[in-house]
Amino acid sequence: MTQLPDSERVGVPGGTLITATAEEGRALAVLMARHSIHRIQPVLETLQDGRPIYAANADSLIAASQVIAIEFATIAAANNYWRP
Amino acid sequence: MTQLPDSERVGVPGGTLITATAEEGRALAVLMARHSIHRIQPVLETLQDGRPIYAANADSLIAASQVIAIEFATIAAANNYWRP
Amino acid sequence: MTQLPDSERVGVPGGTLITATAEEGRALAVLMARHSIHRIQPVLETLQDGRPIYAANADSLIAASQVIAIEFATIAAANNYWRP
Amino acid sequence: MTQLPDSERVGVPGGTLITATAEEGRALAVLMARHSIHRIQPVLETLQDGRPIYAANADSLIAASQVIAIEFATIAAANNYWRP
Amino acid sequence: MTQLPDSERVGVPGGTLITATAEEGRALAVLMARHSIHRIQPVLETLQDGRPIYAANADSLIAASQVIAIEFATIAAANNYWRP
Amino acid sequence: MTQLPDSERVGVPGGTLITATAEEGRALAVLMARHSIHRIQPVLETLQDGRPIYAANADSLIAASQVIAIEFATIAAANNYWRP
Repeated sequence: MTQLPDSERVGVPGGTLITATAEEGRALAVLMARHSIHRIQPVLETLQDGRPIYAANADSLIAASQVIAIEFATIAAANNYWRP
Repeated sequence: MTQLPDSERVGVPGGTLITATAEEGRALAVLMARHSIHRIQPVLETLQDGRPIYAANADSLIAASQVIAIEFATIAAANNYWRP
Repeated sequence: MTQLPDSERVGVPGGTLITATAEEGRALAVLMARHSIHRIQPVLETLQDGRPIYAANADSLIAASQVIAIEFATIAAANNYWRP
Repeated sequence: MTQLPDSERVGVPGGTLITATAEEGRALAVLMARHSIHRIQPVLETLQDGRPIYAANADSLIAASQVIAIEFATIAAANNYWRP
Repeated sequence: MTQLPDSERVGVPGGTLITATAEEGRALAVLMARHSIHRIQPVLETLQDGRPIYAANADSLIAASQVIAIEFATIAAANNYWRP
Repeated sequence: MTQLPDSERVGVPGGTLITATAEEGRALAVLMARHSIHRIQPVLETLQDGRPIYAANADSLIAASQVIAIEFATIAAANNYWRP
């Protein structure tokens, strides 16, 4: 069994919610959501076994997209929505 | 297997949460929700296989509409709710 | 197969989140939630087929009411909660 | 089949989110959540048929309590959390 | 069948969202979530029958923890996050 | 049966939502989410029995990551998003 490296379990990659652009903020949201899962399940093989199942299941994909939306809401607020 | 083009995986299409109208904000929310899924599952055939299932399943449709509602809440706040 | 008219797929019916009353805001939330689903699944027959199932399933009804609650939260904030 | 009266389908009973106390706000949240369901499914018999199922199912009860929590968050914000 | 006492169905135990500490706020969130369920299902035996099922089911426990998180978000905002 | 120690059931470990860094805030969110579950289900053996199931189930992992995202949103707001 392979444990994910710590870098894959960091809670807030880069250590800040502040990003230069909305696109970077979105990427951070995706990463934070993924790292939450790595934090709960750090075994690479288990995650790889699950991939074919959830990645082909609409409900799982929708649920994952919901987590990204919630993380992004926090990051967007942190950045005052990157208002010009 | 066909990988979706990068344009279908952009986190924040157009690069900003600021839109001229609430309707445009709503369209952006739908797009961002969809692109989240594309980001997790970029294989077109897999997405197409899933469409007949989730698009005819009320619970899946409701779950997807929830993600849109959350994304829209962020976009609406970004635009001060397009208050006149 | 009958495609829903565009009017049933408008993201923000009326084009604004601003309503005169909380009741109108609630009606808008219901409509926006419903139109999200129409946007994903515009075929009338498919929606009609699903109705008997979700409308008699408590979990589906609860999930739908959650989407309304989230949409309403956004609309209520937009209207400063219709504070007197 | 018995259609629920309009009073059971009003979106915001009392027409305002403003309440005198947090307890009243909580009661309003419960009512609004329930009326969302009545709005989607107005047939009394169907609702009564569903009661024995969801009211004895922990997951359904938890899901319903989540909707109340979201509605209450909106009402609490509307009332500035009834801060003294 | 035993009906829970009114004290177990109070919406906001203590009648206020304002607490002295974050820990008290968390306890209030747990209580409010629980009382939501009691309000929907006031029969003690039914609740007790459900306990062995949901309390040993990870998904049910996760769903319940989500309701606590949402209630806590409201209480924390009410208390300005107990900022020093 | 082993009851988890009180320290594992504390609602807000450390007694405050205020943290020095976003990373600490994220760790607090994970801990608070976990302690919610411990508060509902304090028996260690039951939690250990559930681990192999939820930790290998994508939907459970996604649901857990959603709770972390909601808790984090509250903690981030408490800390003004650790804005520089």
